[in-house]
Amino acid sequence: MAYMIQVDFKMNGPFGDEMADAFSDLAKSINEEEGFVWKIWTENAETNEAGGIYLFESKESAEKYLDMHRKRLEGFGIPEVNGKIFGINTKLTEINKGPIKS
Amino acid sequence: MAYMIQVDFKMNGPFGDEMADAFSDLAKSINEEEGFVWKIWTENAETNEAGGIYLFESKESAEKYLDMHRKRLEGFGIPEVNGKIFGINTKLTEINKGPIKS
Repeated sequence: MAYMIQVDFKMNGPFGDEMADAFSDLAKSINEEEGFVWKIWTENAETNEAGGIYLFESKESAEKYLDMHRKRLEGFGIPEVNGKIFGINTKLTEINKGPIKS
Repeated sequence: MAYMIQVDFKMNGPFGDEMADAFSDLAKSINEEEGFVWKIWTENAETNEAGGIYLFESKESAEKYLDMHRKRLEGFGIPEVNGKIFGINTKLTEINKGPIKS
């Protein structure tokens, strides 16, 4: 069963194209993570926040990734991370065309 | 340009099929909201939390929806809502197969 991760944290940039250049190798590596389906990279240059919305194939793979990602962000100098894992209500999500098929 | 909303809040259920029965009419109405593209309905019966991840066509439509939704949740007896709007880093999201096409 698929699970979501939502992550956000304070970051003073880079955003936009500069962020894409800085993190494209990291993005490619995320495609190789166990159970990974997709990620939407989020950013807000006005509030100095960034993060991601992820779909994983299972709760276990989502938990494993979030643990690793928290440590990675701490290594980037970002100790405070809002990170939550959620199950998905499939019936309601199907009504609203949510892209949860892997 | 597309924008995400992430929303979560404390809720003592219902979850699962019972949640789907309770909110299917609400879900149908969300399809009619201005600028709405999709919603993934999130739930966690262990932590008594629920919420949603949304894609909207513009920042303005996302802001308008989140304002309305906060008031609706307050009407449901849920005064404290974590709600954030984010832009999307398109280049990184494309690498990670994020479903942001409307």
